[in-house]
Amino acid sequence: MADDKPDNTVYIGKKPTMNYVLAVATQFNSGSADVTIKARGKSISKAVDVAEIVRNRFVQEAKVDDIQITTEVLENDDGKSSNVSSIEIFLKK
Amino acid sequence: MADDKPDNTVYIGKKPTMNYVLAVATQFNSGSADVTIKARGKSISKAVDVAEIVRNRFVQEAKVDDIQITTEVLENDDGKSSNVSSIEIFLKK
Repeated sequence: MADDKPDNTVYIGKKPTMNYVLAVATQFNSGSADVTIKARGKSISKAVDVAEIVRNRFVQEAKVDDIQITTEVLENDDGKSSNVSSIEIFLKK
Repeated sequence: MADDKPDNTVYIGKKPTMNYVLAVATQFNSGSADVTIKARGKSISKAVDVAEIVRNRFVQEAKVDDIQITTEVLENDDGKSSNVSSIEIFLKK
């Protein structure tokens, strides 16, 4: 279901939502049949926005194929570890 | 998959994450086989945190049965409408 090719994955960070929307739409328009959107922590909400905007406005034949949520363990600078939730949204057209 | 009984649904808002974790865990511990977590907009990240904390720490037999994302249209006070993303996480044990 997931495509491991890294160029098919869009990582959501601190840029404006539309930057990521365009990145996903460009992937589809350049021939990809599936694109994965990944995000951690507070960016998860933005990942859902990106998927929804792509689907509703830019690539209307794209569908949500699957959504996975997991917990990642991050090592802080001071050696402590903390848990952060992450999401992967698999879009397919 | 989704259970329409409203008492099986936990809506994520502005309270601390652990309040919602306890609400979901209480649902499971009082006999529910499935609990739905719903959130909109910025609360979506918190919804994923709640699902992950419940699954990893409180109700380890609970699994993510399905995740749905949609766009809701909200009417503002000034008559304009705006789109907001929403998520439903269906947990099952």
